[in-house]
Amino acid sequence: MKQKRISDYGINIGEFPKGRLNKITDVKGVRVGHSTLRTAQYNTGVTVILPTEGNIFYEKFVAASFVHNGFGKTVGTVQIDELGILESPIALTNTLNVGKIADALVGYMAERCEKEGRPIASINPVVGECNDSKINKITDRPLDEKSFGEALENATEDFAEGSVGAGTGTQCYGLKGGIGSASRVVSICGKDYTLGILVQSNYGRTADLILDGKPIGKELDKKVNGTECDQGSIMVIVATDAPLTARQLKRVIRRCSVGIARCGSYIGHGSGEVFIGFSTANIIPANPDGILNISSIPENKIDLLFRACGEATEEAILNSMVTAETVKAGNGVVLRSLAEFI
Amino acid sequence: MKQKRISDYGINIGEFPKGRLNKITDVKGVRVGHSTLRTAQYNTGVTVILPTEGNIFYEKFVAASFVHNGFGKTVGTVQIDELGILESPIALTNTLNVGKIADALVGYMAERCEKEGRPIASINPVVGECNDSKINKITDRPLDEKSFGEALENATEDFAEGSVGAGTGTQCYGLKGGIGSASRVVSICGKDYTLGILVQSNYGRTADLILDGKPIGKELDKKVNGTECDQGSIMVIVATDAPLTARQLKRVIRRCSVGIARCGSYIGHGSGEVFIGFSTANIIPANPDGILNISSIPENKIDLLFRACGEATEEAILNSMVTAETVKAGNGVVLRSLAEFI
Amino acid sequence: MKQKRISDYGINIGEFPKGRLNKITDVKGVRVGHSTLRTAQYNTGVTVILPTEGNIFYEKFVAASFVHNGFGKTVGTVQIDELGILESPIALTNTLNVGKIADALVGYMAERCEKEGRPIASINPVVGECNDSKINKITDRPLDEKSFGEALENATEDFAEGSVGAGTGTQCYGLKGGIGSASRVVSICGKDYTLGILVQSNYGRTADLILDGKPIGKELDKKVNGTECDQGSIMVIVATDAPLTARQLKRVIRRCSVGIARCGSYIGHGSGEVFIGFSTANIIPANPDGILNISSIPENKIDLLFRACGEATEEAILNSMVTAETVKAGNGVVLRSLAEFI
Amino acid sequence: MKQKRISDYGINIGEFPKGRLNKITDVKGVRVGHSTLRTAQYNTGVTVILPTEGNIFYEKFVAASFVHNGFGKTVGTVQIDELGILESPIALTNTLNVGKIADALVGYMAERCEKEGRPIASINPVVGECNDSKINKITDRPLDEKSFGEALENATEDFAEGSVGAGTGTQCYGLKGGIGSASRVVSICGKDYTLGILVQSNYGRTADLILDGKPIGKELDKKVNGTECDQGSIMVIVATDAPLTARQLKRVIRRCSVGIARCGSYIGHGSGEVFIGFSTANIIPANPDGILNISSIPENKIDLLFRACGEATEEAILNSMVTAETVKAGNGVVLRSLAEFI
Repeated sequence: MKQKRISDYGINIGEFPKGRLNKITDVKGVRVGHSTLRTAQYNTGVTVILPTEGNIFYEKFVAASFVHNGFGKTVGTVQIDELGILESPIALTNTLNVGKIADALVGYMAERCEKEGRPIASINPVVGECNDSKINKITDRPLDEKSFGEALENATEDFAEGSVGAGTGTQCYGLKGGIGSASRVVSICGKDYTLGILVQSNYGRTADLILDGKPIGKELDKKVNGTECDQGSIMVIVATDAPLTARQLKRVIRRCSVGIARCGSYIGHGSGEVFIGFSTANIIPANPDGILNISSIPENKIDLLFRACGEATEEAILNSMVTAETVKAGNGVVLRSLAEFI
Repeated sequence: MKQKRISDYGINIGEFPKGRLNKITDVKGVRVGHSTLRTAQYNTGVTVILPTEGNIFYEKFVAASFVHNGFGKTVGTVQIDELGILESPIALTNTLNVGKIADALVGYMAERCEKEGRPIASINPVVGECNDSKINKITDRPLDEKSFGEALENATEDFAEGSVGAGTGTQCYGLKGGIGSASRVVSICGKDYTLGILVQSNYGRTADLILDGKPIGKELDKKVNGTECDQGSIMVIVATDAPLTARQLKRVIRRCSVGIARCGSYIGHGSGEVFIGFSTANIIPANPDGILNISSIPENKIDLLFRACGEATEEAILNSMVTAETVKAGNGVVLRSLAEFI
Repeated sequence: MKQKRISDYGINIGEFPKGRLNKITDVKGVRVGHSTLRTAQYNTGVTVILPTEGNIFYEKFVAASFVHNGFGKTVGTVQIDELGILESPIALTNTLNVGKIADALVGYMAERCEKEGRPIASINPVVGECNDSKINKITDRPLDEKSFGEALENATEDFAEGSVGAGTGTQCYGLKGGIGSASRVVSICGKDYTLGILVQSNYGRTADLILDGKPIGKELDKKVNGTECDQGSIMVIVATDAPLTARQLKRVIRRCSVGIARCGSYIGHGSGEVFIGFSTANIIPANPDGILNISSIPENKIDLLFRACGEATEEAILNSMVTAETVKAGNGVVLRSLAEFI
Repeated sequence: MKQKRISDYGINIGEFPKGRLNKITDVKGVRVGHSTLRTAQYNTGVTVILPTEGNIFYEKFVAASFVHNGFGKTVGTVQIDELGILESPIALTNTLNVGKIADALVGYMAERCEKEGRPIASINPVVGECNDSKINKITDRPLDEKSFGEALENATEDFAEGSVGAGTGTQCYGLKGGIGSASRVVSICGKDYTLGILVQSNYGRTADLILDGKPIGKELDKKVNGTECDQGSIMVIVATDAPLTARQLKRVIRRCSVGIARCGSYIGHGSGEVFIGFSTANIIPANPDGILNISSIPENKIDLLFRACGEATEEAILNSMVTAETVKAGNGVVLRSLAEFI
């Protein structure tokens, strides 16, 4: 079933052309899979972003992280910042399940590399998180390696958005949040490059919500039992096939903050905002045997990627909200869909 | 002559009450002075922000800097980051005049401290800048210690905005930019605190301009010879009397980025965006002789300052634009005022 | 059995007096516990540093992290950097077991807070690591919540050093590494403060080893099958009862790098070097209800803590090595004790 | 007259071969010039490091800065950090003369580019500093564009070390400090690369001094009127022809800290320690017209540059001290040469 996305409401964010699916998977090789847990007690899950069809540990990608507000528990950023590379898939989950999912990610990669004949003794798992405790009994940490494995198996290009995977239990501006995605195509030095965004949205004060420039939050706040403060977090994953150094990529992903601000947030104290990006354009072998040549777009053209990043983030957030159906949780909390209000 | 500000057009940004003057000088002790140079060749100047009526070197303030886009030449941030204090007035000027104005600032403080009987052998001058070369022959660096001295002498609470001082030669979204200010009052733990903003605006692509949520840029771009890319820079100075540690203050001033994004920018590559903040609430003596007690608002109340910072920045930018009159420069360039279009 | 430490060899590092036990636990309230796993396949374990006898989540401590070389997988630093607080015990373990131990830490704190009547929905677990794969089948991740629980139960002031807990499988300069500790007492503004260090040492090229200024590495390298490159990592935990802001504490713990350099390392590419510090002097309540007063030593006295930090780190590294007995691992690898060579 | 350097005393630091001159100018294209001011009141000067024989603004180099202790007033690091490039020569001078020398640097480059037919409207001057107020009437800021011009004219490969240029008035460990240099050659992927260091040394407590592993400071402190605390600063400039990205270069120059620690310092609070590096291997054109290819050594070989950087820094510091003759300043202060004591 095709989900109704924000552009299906006639709302088009920004000025750049979108990719084929208008999803992060428009960057060739990228796939996304979900594992969703929905019971009386639990509304949570795992979402996995596979950066390549190959083995990312052997053929690493240039990567960067940017912490916009560090009230969060993402793991893996220390090494990304130092080495500028991604060497594992990226998983998203709930805050207190990060340990188990990081362990599952390590187990999966260790086993895979063992099978492929090049065993490893170290790997940097990257796991982001949002706190879905409003409708999930989070201290139980119900997700494990099976959840992770399921998300892996489900990995596909045309993945679902909304209340699925790591977005199952999230709220956004007091409405139902979730997983959302978008992509943009920019032309630099005569070649088209794609930049894709995936968000796990779980932030925002209801009264602050801005929809494509329209400050609808205050009215909305009267209709729903909205949030009084901006807390919960948002994770943003950025993929691109544009050739970038780690320094450049860090500059690009920083512009996710523009998309978030355009949706109305003031970067709440309690809202961890962490962005992680990778570029598929340069492969960094695990054991390089000579001087590397990193292709890199000229800095005076980087504005195009900045803008693409900002507008795709804004659209991905809106997609996460309109595709997320209303949820009535076992604990009585109701999180309504933005789709009811536009 | 009273200048017409954005609120005089019935446009009110955000939700917090404004301070008495709705300027950075609403923070007690803060004064601002300008020196303006306007000739056939030059449109430039200096703006000085005096943080206290006392001697800031002897009685330092907690301070923080935040570099949102580092394509800029601000001096003084290295020491602010390390020590978390401000020990000099802050000056703003054009990019290539930073050296001379920093020297003037050093000279002024050295002489003053000599006179006050406590000579100094070191000081960290803080000077921010924007590039006003569109209508200023910037390589001449026409500003010097006299300009700086004049700005000092002019320092007052009810200072002018628009095309004055360091804002004399700036452009903003292809229109005339300049100096703008705003303030907000927030109540934390039963007490009112003021946060004030001063911007030197010189950034933005015309088509991107958003005025209080309305994307007026595209239409505007047809009427004026707008900018095609977002470059030039914006400096934001934040003052508050709320008690904050340097770490907290860095978090607060980061939210200036929200105000900038709300006005339409994607943080252009060529636009240096540097924020510098200080809190007047705790005095750090130059030679403390015992354990210090730093009062500090509880982190779970800091959101109020985040929001105040974001919305006051947005308003200060708009004030910088509507108060700036249209300028026809000697080189033929015309920068029109936003006031013509609302 | 009392372990023979570096000072028992007549080698005294630095100039400051040591604390009572010359361990990190000289900082009042701090305790350390180990869980050690030693089998044919495994040489690994967990070490837990308890920062307080109270519940650190309810009564948090000012904290800081410093990444000297980020080729590592420590979790928890993102939030420490943002909020400047520690809200969980600190665990150390092997690289690939971080996920499981982080999960155990979350489980422990969630259960404890539940029992104490103030349940939590979020916590930032702090887990550091070194890679002990030279003598540990690391991909098996054999440590779990039982290991963590055992370490907790064993927590005490006069804890063991050397090949125990998280130091069971580590190497240092090609010899046996492990857990080491030291402390210093400094007098500031008329009051004595203690700074304590705990290291998990697992780094260094044999030929580089410097013992109290003597470059013994080259000779040593002929006697043992030394390491050819500096990889593996070192974790340094710093505790102090000196009152410090997070900014100051970050400055202090950075000086751990001096101790490491004095032992001969050049900060190897493959050696993750991560420092985490906390100060017990100011308690930050989980839900503060008013303005906080943070006591803070004057910056012009901070040099004493810098020096104490540097020399205690150097001594802690040497303690980790001399207390660690020679290990013959199941895989045939022999890591000899520095005690054999002095 | 050939100066007697530390290796002429039979002291050889580290293990790598030195370059031809054992100076930073062993990196092809790099030249260094001094302007020295020595009067009854003044002991100060300017040192200029020219990174290339070409125009560095048009053909920029990959660059990085690293602030080890930010109690300093270096200008230019904000843009270096953001863009990863150097676009001006680097000047060193005294703390309060930074403004005038930065202005002179801007003036020189503006004029030069004008003459070369490609005028500029912006440039990021890079100026480092140490505080030489012990023997220099620093508040007078006696250096200006003439001083800068003289330093430029004097630029050469086989430049003088010791009490010259920006090292004229500096002290180091209570002895005379100054300008020092050293270089190393490393072989990576079958090719030789040179890494050169230049220091402006002005830091250290006398009792802390370590000479090639020997703690000579305590004895020395009895003989001279030594410093009681570690303040003053050290600037380290790193040049290399090894191909590196900005991220890699930042990692390399961080290892300057090892050389400083080996000489005995604990990174004193009052000692600003700032490192700036550039690589001549990749040219970044001012206006690139297509995708760039950045050559880059593989990360698993970077340890060689780390070690070279650490040991060359240690040697450069010692060179700065032994080549600096004893100075009796007009204010009666005597700073003796390390050469008297070895």
